[in-house]
Amino acid sequence: MENNVACGVGMEEDEMDLPPGFRFHPTDEELISHYLYNKVIDINFSCIAIGDVDLNKSEPWELPYEGKAKMGEKEWYFFCIRDRKYPTGVRTNRATEAGYWKATGKDKEIYRGKCLVGMKKTLVFYKGRAPKGEKTNWVMHEYRLDRKFPTHNLPKRAKVNK
Amino acid sequence: MENNVACGVGMEEDEMDLPPGFRFHPTDEELISHYLYNKVIDINFSCIAIGDVDLNKSEPWELPYEGKAKMGEKEWYFFCIRDRKYPTGVRTNRATEAGYWKATGKDKEIYRGKCLVGMKKTLVFYKGRAPKGEKTNWVMHEYRLDRKFPTHNLPKRAKVNK
Repeated sequence: MENNVACGVGMEEDEMDLPPGFRFHPTDEELISHYLYNKVIDINFSCIAIGDVDLNKSEPWELPYEGKAKMGEKEWYFFCIRDRKYPTGVRTNRATEAGYWKATGKDKEIYRGKCLVGMKKTLVFYKGRAPKGEKTNWVMHEYRLDRKFPTHNLPKRAKVNK
Repeated sequence: MENNVACGVGMEEDEMDLPPGFRFHPTDEELISHYLYNKVIDINFSCIAIGDVDLNKSEPWELPYEGKAKMGEKEWYFFCIRDRKYPTGVRTNRATEAGYWKATGKDKEIYRGKCLVGMKKTLVFYKGRAPKGEKTNWVMHEYRLDRKFPTHNLPKRAKVNK
């Protein structure tokens, strides 16, 4: 859960009845220390601006964006539970049926004032299978909480000692 | 009135009680065809996102921004009535006590679909008096309605024939 990602869903600002010109344009810090934090401490947390999506089951061009499309927005946001490549490993599975997300550049540290709250990874979508995938114009920013972020009140998974 | 400008005031999103990450980030087209248009057809039009300012009486660093400052926003918006250099001329007076706004680059045409709705001019603030002013980092975008914009329902000023 600590490595949930927050990226692109359907803003549906219409539902909020905002005046023209108002939109969801969060800073990296807001995404992490408000939205992602709330999602991590409570998986049932939901908000109008960010939907839930299974990234491994959705191609980028299938990602739901509803209201967004009408408004011509090119960026939108969603929560996604991290899928592991192997049950016992730490590597993240970012493949879909048609291709895969590949990291590019260096992860960026996100601060709230002087406090490191999380990291931002930039990924590009490739069609096909690595290493022969074909690069596309789809870009995703993946946010994760910093390990030291105060999540001591997280619901813990019970351990069973055999 | 047709050349009113819409630029930088105090957003005070707090008053709207918006969730984190929501802010006033209008497109050029929204600024012109919604906000500026409404202001031009009714000088009493007011909105939470855009205040009224006399640009000739405010130095850039004095422009009111209230809520904005708290949020660390670096851009804000206001309406301003165009001041003419000479009563009978068409040139705009953009001087303040401490300096002046000088146009840079070419005006940009702003479209709504295929319809030209207005123009966007970029200005830089210089301290002192032209041509010896000292360039600063303050930038302003000035919007004006296109002459062909449907303002036939504008309140007309009565003409007195002597």
